[in-house]
Amino acid sequence: MILSVDAMGGAYAPGVIIEGMASIARKYPKVRYIIFGDADKIFSLLSAYPILEDKCEVVHCSTFITDEQPPVLALKKGKESSMRKAIDALHEGKANACISGGNTGALMVIAKMVLGTIHGIKRPAIVSIYPNFNEGVVMLDLGANAECDAHNLFQFALMGHCFAQIVLKKHSPSIGILNVGTEENKGRDIDKKAYGLLKASNLNFFGYIEGDDIIKGTVNVVVTDGFSGNIVLKTSEGLARICKEMIKITFQSSILSRIAGLLVAHNFKKISDRLDPRSHNGAMLIGVDGIVVKSHGSSDAIGFANALEVTINLVKRNINDEISEMLAQISNQDGLAKPTLVSKIKKKLGLGFKF
Amino acid sequence: MILSVDAMGGAYAPGVIIEGMASIARKYPKVRYIIFGDADKIFSLLSAYPILEDKCEVVHCSTFITDEQPPVLALKKGKESSMRKAIDALHEGKANACISGGNTGALMVIAKMVLGTIHGIKRPAIVSIYPNFNEGVVMLDLGANAECDAHNLFQFALMGHCFAQIVLKKHSPSIGILNVGTEENKGRDIDKKAYGLLKASNLNFFGYIEGDDIIKGTVNVVVTDGFSGNIVLKTSEGLARICKEMIKITFQSSILSRIAGLLVAHNFKKISDRLDPRSHNGAMLIGVDGIVVKSHGSSDAIGFANALEVTINLVKRNINDEISEMLAQISNQDGLAKPTLVSKIKKKLGLGFKF
Repeated sequence: MILSVDAMGGAYAPGVIIEGMASIARKYPKVRYIIFGDADKIFSLLSAYPILEDKCEVVHCSTFITDEQPPVLALKKGKESSMRKAIDALHEGKANACISGGNTGALMVIAKMVLGTIHGIKRPAIVSIYPNFNEGVVMLDLGANAECDAHNLFQFALMGHCFAQIVLKKHSPSIGILNVGTEENKGRDIDKKAYGLLKASNLNFFGYIEGDDIIKGTVNVVVTDGFSGNIVLKTSEGLARICKEMIKITFQSSILSRIAGLLVAHNFKKISDRLDPRSHNGAMLIGVDGIVVKSHGSSDAIGFANALEVTINLVKRNINDEISEMLAQISNQDGLAKPTLVSKIKKKLGLGFKF
Repeated sequence: MILSVDAMGGAYAPGVIIEGMASIARKYPKVRYIIFGDADKIFSLLSAYPILEDKCEVVHCSTFITDEQPPVLALKKGKESSMRKAIDALHEGKANACISGGNTGALMVIAKMVLGTIHGIKRPAIVSIYPNFNEGVVMLDLGANAECDAHNLFQFALMGHCFAQIVLKKHSPSIGILNVGTEENKGRDIDKKAYGLLKASNLNFFGYIEGDDIIKGTVNVVVTDGFSGNIVLKTSEGLARICKEMIKITFQSSILSRIAGLLVAHNFKKISDRLDPRSHNGAMLIGVDGIVVKSHGSSDAIGFANALEVTINLVKRNINDEISEMLAQISNQDGLAKPTLVSKIKKKLGLGFKF
């Protein structure tokens, strides 16, 4: 297996990228890497990790895409950038997957333009794990599509099903649509239509869930548009960060509380590790015709190693072939969706569109 | 001042309702109440609070609206209910405001139908305070309108401005639109259009904010559609509840951590009080032609007392007159919005609509 790595994406690149690769090298001895970025810096970092010596090819890139660059500009002007070259390598068949910690919008636009989408998928989405006290919840779209239609949501559910099978190792993951209530008549038009489509499919559809159900783990896969998904994610990150700070400040507020802090430090660490976003790092640009994984921009080496593991598992299980097969099944088998509904959708989408 | 009180709404009604009224009676000796509900129960509760003796009139209602009742059914069939009678009293000028802890959807539909909306306001919204480490953030819409247009968002901003002036006591509260990024070109069509409207107004418009800005307190007023607002609120409630449970479990996990818990209990209580939703209880159905306040359904007496205080302040400051005046100013003064933009909006809304 060969992974194409953008070594210049993220706040602590390229240091944490190389360190992350080194930390999983023993566990995955057969994985090799093509590393794109500033060759001098990369070689100097690699020299500290003999374990990576025979596993890496370095391709020098003169530029890289910054977080501030608008995606479309990055697509047009970033042809020599480490991110673009890493995706090009995947497109040219030199690698099995690509990973970057850089500008999410740019990565999505470049990946979509260079690689295209899986046949039948209208819109790729960003999918990742929302941490909770169990195994976490697969959630999508986390921000690729601010506006969606019901058919997009249905395809997100289908892709989320495949992602949950691989990453959560669930045979038949339960799927919920995020809404403002759980009754069938609640919510927006797109959610009601997506509800109908999912109810008629033979995915394990739970129904509507509300905001507090995400962390409760009521379902394995949460489906929503990219606007709501992004807002839920960032609100939660902000709240979790403030809770953590609050606990820290409390334990530092007096000598007694410092002593208390020492007494429970171990227990608090266990919980905070569980809710640590780093242990769930690795969002996939799902629906793109090629496995592209986004590592969190502020991730450290542990987080990047986790994103690498996610990437390796997605390649091993060949997630995109699974998605393609599911799409084909839906168009071939009547059992998967009520024929009347399928015909209705086909009609709505135009007969030429292969559903 | 007379408040019309639905004594049967909420999980712990009517007990916490009467207890909440008693607890603020000394602070607001001139406020009187008309209480709607089961007269036997109410009289028996009132007998425990001599301070309320000469302040209350009780109107017996044979039914009440349950949380499960669909709003439209509640409107049609709940004419003899305590909630409906409480709103009728406001409509008939017998009270200055109405408060209920019952079914939010039913309360909104009944209030809107019986009282109508403020002249010029297209859609009422649910507004409340999102707690943070400062004074909290005014946020709307929290769930009344799953789907909105840009003009609705603009009116939410205007109403949020008035609410923040009164409740947060800010002279010129800053306003942000919730979005997936802070750049001007980010997000959905409605947000971009609302951005244009707010930029051209002379409200204190900050621009876009992201999910984590809500708890950070980047702005005083967060404006978004009722779908996003509801999801943010419920996700946060779920996360906060789990954080609290997590802390509790950690402190109970061993003898050492129980001791630690005792050492920091006081400090943790201070923080948790600050983030306690009860201290910010009292959501207003803003835009309805009459002051209607919703207390949280699971609120206790402390929470209900807080919602009563919010109601009293809204009546004192005459919030609905302030909103009407702002609307009138916008249609009279060119300085508040660029004339071209105003004409564009007027055109879009139909010339007959008084903007």
